[in-house]
Amino acid sequence: MSKQISIPALKRLPSYYYILCQSMESGKKYISSATIAKLLDIDDTQVRKDIAATGYVGKPKVGFDIKDFKAHLENYLDLNTKKEAFLIGAGNLGIALAKYEGFKKYGLNITALFDEDIHKIGTMVGSKKIFDIEKLPDLVERMNVHIAILTVPAPKAQEVADFLVQSGIKAIWNFAPANIKVPDNIIISNQDLASSFVTLSLMMSGK
Amino acid sequence: MSKQISIPALKRLPSYYYILCQSMESGKKYISSATIAKLLDIDDTQVRKDIAATGYVGKPKVGFDIKDFKAHLENYLDLNTKKEAFLIGAGNLGIALAKYEGFKKYGLNITALFDEDIHKIGTMVGSKKIFDIEKLPDLVERMNVHIAILTVPAPKAQEVADFLVQSGIKAIWNFAPANIKVPDNIIISNQDLASSFVTLSLMMSGK
Repeated sequence: MSKQISIPALKRLPSYYYILCQSMESGKKYISSATIAKLLDIDDTQVRKDIAATGYVGKPKVGFDIKDFKAHLENYLDLNTKKEAFLIGAGNLGIALAKYEGFKKYGLNITALFDEDIHKIGTMVGSKKIFDIEKLPDLVERMNVHIAILTVPAPKAQEVADFLVQSGIKAIWNFAPANIKVPDNIIISNQDLASSFVTLSLMMSGK
Repeated sequence: MSKQISIPALKRLPSYYYILCQSMESGKKYISSATIAKLLDIDDTQVRKDIAATGYVGKPKVGFDIKDFKAHLENYLDLNTKKEAFLIGAGNLGIALAKYEGFKKYGLNITALFDEDIHKIGTMVGSKKIFDIEKLPDLVERMNVHIAILTVPAPKAQEVADFLVQSGIKAIWNFAPANIKVPDNIIISNQDLASSFVTLSLMMSGK
């Protein structure tokens, strides 16, 4: 945990973890960096560098013990610790994310939703309540949640992001297709949903 | 367009495009492959190889003219051509994607939605109609749309994917957190929404 790993490398690790889960399900015992590289279409040397940065070492010739490597990554990526987040903007996307089953395996839990719509405030999405956005600063402090998932419409994204920062939020996962500015001490990750589509459509056109 | 580019390179190009958009917004005129490589933490040689594969050449010493290179990539990635897709599963996520503004800049247009729910069939999401899933094979052929965005619940994903393949769909962008098997001639891209979150939460924990 003490070594500094680069952010892009960090971004690649979840895909390695995904492959390990898949390989384990299919009953394999060992996997090589070359196989991982091929499955993800990235350079083998890059894969080896990334894995080394997490402090994990494979066995010469046989590669990585899948079960052991998976446990290592779970620990490194802190997947067994529950990570709480608030979701801001209880529209279709917000509700879909609040219900999304795929977050569980990464330990992500959306604690509560926030909206400004008086018709939504107080209602439930499954077991999660929609709160008045005005309550955010108070709940950030009381519940000690510092990550926000931003699913408001693009034209409102900057204004809401400013309010999140004022409310004590430290990291924003932005789904709005808007270029948001935040102070340097705030972490922002923009979810660009469309770029995967570009690759898919180009692959289909035979490029 | 005639040159064959590798899938890994193709997958990296949207990130280059994203960087060019950001750099142009911030008023820069030129960018070097080294700067792009640093921002994405991949090898400079890799970046230069990828860019060369698109047929673009920078100016010695000054690097790439951002505006010109951006226009080149737009053309190469075919971003100005409308790409039609069908969306399968008109739940919250499906509706959110059908309304998502961020797809426009990549030329993606969701032509129609499909569902099996009799209460949804025939209704509209903005200007897009929800059709009976049974109509899919007919509409794939008539409208010549061969890309499907899959937003059904995970337990239904495989069954629906099988039906998509039978219906003539050639590429599936899968949002369901499920491990789908498709024939080798079908392109599948799995959208793992949670992995970005892992990175964000690790960055916040100071890793």
